[in-house]
Amino acid sequence: MSTDEHDLTELAVDRWSTAESPRLAELMTSLVRHLHAYAREVNLTEDEWAAAITWLTAAGRLSDDKRQELVLASDVLGLSMLTVELGHRFSERATPATVLGPFHIDGSPAVPYAHDMSDGLPGTPLFLTGTVTDTAGTPLPHVVLDVWQADTDGAYESQVPGVDEARLRAKYTTRGDGTYCIRTVAPLGYAIPMDGPVGELIHRTRISHFRPAHVHFLIDHPGHHRLITHLFREGGQYLDSDVVFGTKDSLVVPFTERHPASAPPPDGSKLTEPYLQAEYTFVLEPE
Amino acid sequence: MSTDEHDLTELAVDRWSTAESPRLAELMTSLVRHLHAYAREVNLTEDEWAAAITWLTAAGRLSDDKRQELVLASDVLGLSMLTVELGHRFSERATPATVLGPFHIDGSPAVPYAHDMSDGLPGTPLFLTGTVTDTAGTPLPHVVLDVWQADTDGAYESQVPGVDEARLRAKYTTRGDGTYCIRTVAPLGYAIPMDGPVGELIHRTRISHFRPAHVHFLIDHPGHHRLITHLFREGGQYLDSDVVFGTKDSLVVPFTERHPASAPPPDGSKLTEPYLQAEYTFVLEPE
Repeated sequence: MSTDEHDLTELAVDRWSTAESPRLAELMTSLVRHLHAYAREVNLTEDEWAAAITWLTAAGRLSDDKRQELVLASDVLGLSMLTVELGHRFSERATPATVLGPFHIDGSPAVPYAHDMSDGLPGTPLFLTGTVTDTAGTPLPHVVLDVWQADTDGAYESQVPGVDEARLRAKYTTRGDGTYCIRTVAPLGYAIPMDGPVGELIHRTRISHFRPAHVHFLIDHPGHHRLITHLFREGGQYLDSDVVFGTKDSLVVPFTERHPASAPPPDGSKLTEPYLQAEYTFVLEPE
Repeated sequence: MSTDEHDLTELAVDRWSTAESPRLAELMTSLVRHLHAYAREVNLTEDEWAAAITWLTAAGRLSDDKRQELVLASDVLGLSMLTVELGHRFSERATPATVLGPFHIDGSPAVPYAHDMSDGLPGTPLFLTGTVTDTAGTPLPHVVLDVWQADTDGAYESQVPGVDEARLRAKYTTRGDGTYCIRTVAPLGYAIPMDGPVGELIHRTRISHFRPAHVHFLIDHPGHHRLITHLFREGGQYLDSDVVFGTKDSLVVPFTERHPASAPPPDGSKLTEPYLQAEYTFVLEPE
């Protein structure tokens, strides 16, 4: 049947409903309906359609193992955070999830309690300390915290050429009492990459293209829902305008300034300069 | 404001409404609403989101000047044809438009009346003859018909390596009385490229991945709406299942078999084999 005999949208929905997997049929038929509804609502022109194809092609061609412009596009449209919300309907007590982001690297080295993952990079020393518990408040021993962050220039390891060992990322493990201690340098807010198609689009709006200072955590502990989240620095810039919609009030923590003379660093080291310390209890939702 | 204080969708809509161009604001805010509505409707999982990013990245990376997988994706979802329909709300009398497709090449050579654009390629000789008129029926002289088609293997020029002159494409011009005559070889139905992400998806459905036999036309005549269309061969395979939704009843024409002994070819040539002839009146909508 030709398209002037039948409504084009219904014809396309009928076609994609033949997917062998019921879930794929659901995903594709709903996609067809929403794409068509969008085109009809905005009365999409052929020039705009062509511009969208060119934009998507450029974003795809720019993406590889090191840079993911399509993830960034999803992030700035709020789609990544929405998918996180849909997938993590945890109880109120559990630590909320936020976006994974494009910079996680698998296989970070396991390091001991209080190890300095900044390994001499510039920045204010920062200790992240606390406990991992379940939603009943029971401390959880032997929980692995996969931690990563940007340097003080806002660069993650994959954005720095020629790095041959883990840089500002490590896996920490809670002790028998559920406590952890991470030593690093304080992250700063940073701009998302603005030299690609996403940046080109954002430059045509008044959207702030910054993310507030944060450290990433991935905690995948047996018997519990996997938690992917950040801790944000209280009082930092851009908390109210995170370009990827990742901030949540309960993930914003004070980075308290301490002086080694009056408050010895939690790792027992001989620091002479002031340092920052943030305390946080990660609460995992049992499966 | 953080996303737990405000609805994520509304927050994203507010952001993108700051686009400097009102039209861009409209396009982006509607896109955010529809993307979010889709994710909520299907309860999109993080794995499915990641699979979609991988799929789009692969489609983008496969696309270049010669192959456009994202156009193909838009085609098989019916989005391309929908955009054509939205852009060509011509009167009933005018020849309807259909998809441009990814194989048009600019700058085809201007050729005389009845020129053979198949230039010795294998296939049954085909003459396409007729008149170009406006919607009042007035024949239009000096109208350029930009014509292109696939060979009998279903390959367009851009799909054939090492071609250094125009292959199965040319620009014909109507004579003083509005008539045209194109000599070529009869096109056959063909499969869309199935070795990329679009094919991978279609293989998981019962969707027919063929297009019916057709010749493409682009007619951009001063004072008239630009017409991009096809002529399809009546009785050919796949007319009822065109994978890109491009067929329309009024674009399907008989390719009548004729014998040179009883019906001399319209170009006056000395053919000895039977040939096909199709007659069509292209009707342009005045601006």
